[in-house]
Amino acid sequence: MGDRVIIALDAMGGDRAPDMVVKGASIALQRFPQVQFIFYGADSRLQPVIGKLPRLAQRATIRHTDDIVTGDAKPSVALRTGRRSSMRLAIDAVAEGEADCVVSAGNTGALMAMAKFALKMLPGIDRPAMASFFPTRRGESVMLDLGANVECDADNLVQFALMGEVFARTVLGLLQPTVGILNVGSEEVKGHEEVRAAAARLRAPGCPIRFHGFIEGDDIAAGTVDVIVTDGFTGNIAVKTAEGTARLYADFLRAAFKHSLTARLGYAFAATALKKLRARLDPRRYNGAVFLGVGGIAVKSHGGTDALGFANAIGVAVDMKVNGFLDKISSGVATLAALQPAVDKPQSAAL
Amino acid sequence: MGDRVIIALDAMGGDRAPDMVVKGASIALQRFPQVQFIFYGADSRLQPVIGKLPRLAQRATIRHTDDIVTGDAKPSVALRTGRRSSMRLAIDAVAEGEADCVVSAGNTGALMAMAKFALKMLPGIDRPAMASFFPTRRGESVMLDLGANVECDADNLVQFALMGEVFARTVLGLLQPTVGILNVGSEEVKGHEEVRAAAARLRAPGCPIRFHGFIEGDDIAAGTVDVIVTDGFTGNIAVKTAEGTARLYADFLRAAFKHSLTARLGYAFAATALKKLRARLDPRRYNGAVFLGVGGIAVKSHGGTDALGFANAIGVAVDMKVNGFLDKISSGVATLAALQPAVDKPQSAAL
Repeated sequence: MGDRVIIALDAMGGDRAPDMVVKGASIALQRFPQVQFIFYGADSRLQPVIGKLPRLAQRATIRHTDDIVTGDAKPSVALRTGRRSSMRLAIDAVAEGEADCVVSAGNTGALMAMAKFALKMLPGIDRPAMASFFPTRRGESVMLDLGANVECDADNLVQFALMGEVFARTVLGLLQPTVGILNVGSEEVKGHEEVRAAAARLRAPGCPIRFHGFIEGDDIAAGTVDVIVTDGFTGNIAVKTAEGTARLYADFLRAAFKHSLTARLGYAFAATALKKLRARLDPRRYNGAVFLGVGGIAVKSHGGTDALGFANAIGVAVDMKVNGFLDKISSGVATLAALQPAVDKPQSAAL
Repeated sequence: MGDRVIIALDAMGGDRAPDMVVKGASIALQRFPQVQFIFYGADSRLQPVIGKLPRLAQRATIRHTDDIVTGDAKPSVALRTGRRSSMRLAIDAVAEGEADCVVSAGNTGALMAMAKFALKMLPGIDRPAMASFFPTRRGESVMLDLGANVECDADNLVQFALMGEVFARTVLGLLQPTVGILNVGSEEVKGHEEVRAAAARLRAPGCPIRFHGFIEGDDIAAGTVDVIVTDGFTGNIAVKTAEGTARLYADFLRAAFKHSLTARLGYAFAATALKKLRARLDPRRYNGAVFLGVGGIAVKSHGGTDALGFANAIGVAVDMKVNGFLDKISSGVATLAALQPAVDKPQSAAL
């Protein structure tokens, strides 16, 4: 655990950058004293903020660049014209082995495109997936893909299952996470061809993944499985639907407490308990979506997060590095590949 | 509004049938005095319950059958072997013009298969869709398809938009409901081919539908549009994800209130306001998924609902009948068809 971890930070990404990034790094340093940071961004803006934090300053290097990727830039344009941007330089630091991970709160699509281009894909993984974790009745679960791929075939889903399983082991610390595929029913015959073929593969004897089977939308919050696998279209909509519902519920609750004088009084009495509830559901705790499948550790923080949220995104990156995420994926790919001829090829040949 | 409406009831469908069905009909009769009921089910079980409700008994007919569709029956099997079931006979009553609508809390898949077979599809509609409405920040919204079709093409989505729009007008009483297509982003280039093609059609000049454009998952609870159009795979998962999240939130809240003595005291003070909140989110208020697109009014109640929930499902059926749902769909189909040559055919020809 004492091994040095070097984090490349896109200091200019996010609504409150660069201050939020610097303060987030400072918070993360308290939790992970072995971390060193390379900040990519405007020197004139970074120097004064880092200068005020002597402990951080000791562990920080600034690499100046004036160029930034804007929030509304198209991924393809950012990839072509943003070669000297703070985001790209931070990714390149990982590609060149100078840093172990990159963390950015900038433009998601651009970060994805750049990470895929500069870090390449891991051998045996065809497409990257965006993963995140969130609170459930039983604890925390991981879901992927959250929007990197609008359409996915069975191979993609099987690879997502593997990557999600390793992510749950390395970041959530689960020993044998269970994996489910999101579907419209739990029976084997439900859903479209892609989910059925992926499930058949994961059910095959010898498969190293603890496959639960199909799960439904309400199983997400119930925490029925540790890892939820789905295509990027469905995953993106499911996660945003859950966020929207939670927000609506919170708003209705707030309105209910303002409803009368006695209700306000009730709120005053229950305030401590409700604060704990809020902390439990605090989105900053679950900040840090990860691009899995690229040949390096790349974590995306929410653009609107604060320093605490950004520190948690850094924490995800550190956990992945320290617990050997990339190596575990490689060995998982090898196991799945060794398995496939027996399970898969005869079926294909029969068609 | 005084026109007589005849409702065929599958008296044996649902967890607490037939008592729940009879009591639900009795509650609905208070709200809609013009309604008459035909109960399909076991005479020996229906007679005693209806006999105790003289006002209902006056407006009720019992048609005896011993046959029922079980909750776990496969749709294809139910269709083949359930010709004398309470569910099928109730649907046939609509097909034969004896009743105006059918309401059942039984097996969803079987009801769908039987309704499609016995009622046929409306001209111009290729596939049925399951629709429901639910609370949002702004009021209530309709979503479809919730699971009838795992895969949908652009034509299906456009037809769903039309049916959802008419449903919102006839049941929610909205004058000019707005329609959005669920997607992974609001920009025109987002998503897969099917949603982009459907959106292009709905954006065409002269289209009678107030099309908002693409919406995202969090727009559902926000109430950004009145009608949310999506394929049955995504819709089913989105609606169950929202239900699961709301349940998790309610559980966390309950736990928070039990957390300490002061929190319990807080709950006591806020109890009235919280009860109002619960009433606002009461799933019984939003009971009644509808099969749109078939040539008759068929409403599916949740199987686990109580009499109040079932009465609301009957209310949905009455609203659809009284406000001329089927006629409005037909005129909408005609308008869309008149529009299509100008919008659609040249594009197809160019391919």
